[in-house]
Amino acid sequence: MKIGILGGGQLSRMLALAGIPLGFGFHFYFPPYKHSLHALGTITNGAYDDFDKLSEFANSVDVITLENENIPLQTIEHLKTITPVYPDEKALAVSQDRLHEKRFFCELDVPTNRFLQVDSYNDAVNAVKEFGYPIILKTRREGYDGKGQYRINTQADLEKLNDDECRHMIAEEFVKFDREVSLIISRSQSGMVFYDICENSHKDGILNQTRNKPNDPIFALAKKHLMKIAQELDYIGTLTVEFFQTGDTLKANEMAPRVHNSGHWTIDAAITSQFTNHLRAITNLPLGSCASTTDALMLNILGMMPDRKALLTLDNACLHDYEKSPAPGRKLGHLTLLGDTPDQALLEIRSKYFI
Amino acid sequence: MKIGILGGGQLSRMLALAGIPLGFGFHFYFPPYKHSLHALGTITNGAYDDFDKLSEFANSVDVITLENENIPLQTIEHLKTITPVYPDEKALAVSQDRLHEKRFFCELDVPTNRFLQVDSYNDAVNAVKEFGYPIILKTRREGYDGKGQYRINTQADLEKLNDDECRHMIAEEFVKFDREVSLIISRSQSGMVFYDICENSHKDGILNQTRNKPNDPIFALAKKHLMKIAQELDYIGTLTVEFFQTGDTLKANEMAPRVHNSGHWTIDAAITSQFTNHLRAITNLPLGSCASTTDALMLNILGMMPDRKALLTLDNACLHDYEKSPAPGRKLGHLTLLGDTPDQALLEIRSKYFI
Repeated sequence: MKIGILGGGQLSRMLALAGIPLGFGFHFYFPPYKHSLHALGTITNGAYDDFDKLSEFANSVDVITLENENIPLQTIEHLKTITPVYPDEKALAVSQDRLHEKRFFCELDVPTNRFLQVDSYNDAVNAVKEFGYPIILKTRREGYDGKGQYRINTQADLEKLNDDECRHMIAEEFVKFDREVSLIISRSQSGMVFYDICENSHKDGILNQTRNKPNDPIFALAKKHLMKIAQELDYIGTLTVEFFQTGDTLKANEMAPRVHNSGHWTIDAAITSQFTNHLRAITNLPLGSCASTTDALMLNILGMMPDRKALLTLDNACLHDYEKSPAPGRKLGHLTLLGDTPDQALLEIRSKYFI
Repeated sequence: MKIGILGGGQLSRMLALAGIPLGFGFHFYFPPYKHSLHALGTITNGAYDDFDKLSEFANSVDVITLENENIPLQTIEHLKTITPVYPDEKALAVSQDRLHEKRFFCELDVPTNRFLQVDSYNDAVNAVKEFGYPIILKTRREGYDGKGQYRINTQADLEKLNDDECRHMIAEEFVKFDREVSLIISRSQSGMVFYDICENSHKDGILNQTRNKPNDPIFALAKKHLMKIAQELDYIGTLTVEFFQTGDTLKANEMAPRVHNSGHWTIDAAITSQFTNHLRAITNLPLGSCASTTDALMLNILGMMPDRKALLTLDNACLHDYEKSPAPGRKLGHLTLLGDTPDQALLEIRSKYFI
């Protein structure tokens, strides 16, 4: 069976590494850019509106998936006329636009921060009136890893804005929370499975660490929300929702219709990884158990790759080097520490190599 | 860093799958035969005595390893003049010849079944006189998975033999044992680590299942033997020794200077797999913990590949399909069951798909 993947980044790479042991072949399609897929499959470089090339790609595979929710919907609609695509354009339409996503959460009674559509300076002023300072202004589309987000703390910040900068945005109230968590579901035509709660922390809008939290008390509530979302979308594949937790309440922050950075620990510390279950879901194979086999702490390697030897001094460390060129804030790999890591050793490695 | 591997079978495939996340590239060298390496690296097809081609291969990589101990020693010696090879010809010389291997065990005071060199019909007769029936006649070289082994149960069996059939053999006494175990070590220039005891069972000379046995009482003794062997060979990489256990004693049966089938469970159920640690050893990276993260039962898929869907009905199953053509007794893949598998479910899947 041959699986097509739209995209050539680390998520595609990890999908292929999970799929080869299952006996799958891979064909990647993405616009020409520097990738690190070795030769884990066939590669076709093409634009997402090159419909002839897309047709050829779709005809060469049995099922198509993606590593990035910002693929144009027309691309998906075109591919679907030839070969099944999971997740489909319904999930993408929601997650490509923060305003749609927020409205979608509201329709399903999944709590989320209050928000307002912003298309002008006046809309931003109204948002401040409504929510008070600070507000978070976010681009509706294409934002990721903290990009396209601005915190408006004071009237001075507000007055610096102009109409142009306020177009096609949303404003969100600023909410203090106790912690950030995510929950990952894999759902197929015949069932669904949930990973343990991921406890996340971000720095400058970029995920820097995740811990798995077996038996976390908030799991049941997060599961309830996620089940509604996945069912409403008739979702096939792996899907992640990030939440802000305050006390025993959750507010959905955003969703990702794909395998997710906060689930990378599942490669080394779950019976079935999020990548394997994504592939099993889209190929209609039975889903595997999501149970954690051990405690895991995943640390993102950002900006530059430290010396491999130094990263592996802790003997419980699993290194995943995406072989990407260094760039400020870029995710170049991750290190998963399994079981217990002595506090002092963790402190040392963090202070040297991690933010 | 680029790693060269001699061989194109499933062990090479699993080494590459373990090494890509570490950021390694791969180049495989093997005589033309059907392989299932996808394109996990560059492939050069060449004979093991094509020294020009071997030189080119050696010049293209930083370190060389192998998946098969029967590579000619001259091949290794030639490659070593250009690029380091681990394990080296010392370990191969011992393990390529059962007689050398047995003598090597004896020199190190590692207990092993009694044996005699056999080169004629008369030598076989003498072996029977010495050990009584049955004896096991084994070819000294190239035997694996029960191939090249004959059990001589009676005088009638013995009298069927002729001088030709007895050339370059060894005879071993037949020993009843309680169980078969193996121990796997990964050793680098700076340290060594041991996996949990593997409890193995064979059918028709082929491994059909392995369980990991954390805290097994025989571990300490097996470790003592293995440490001697590895140190004597100044071994770099992953090395396996199979033992027969009777009561609290061990007799070494054979060694494999490479990653080993009885360690395949480590991919899914150890902090660091035997493949990852082999690569870390030969590239002089720190070795990772061998601790098991969960109980594991590895079942070999032999002869033909059952339907993927059927194999994955148990939700704790991790499938490894080597994508090889079916053939009687051929190892086509393995299934690792993690944690507890209900007895009834195990019985069902075994009776349908496993020997």
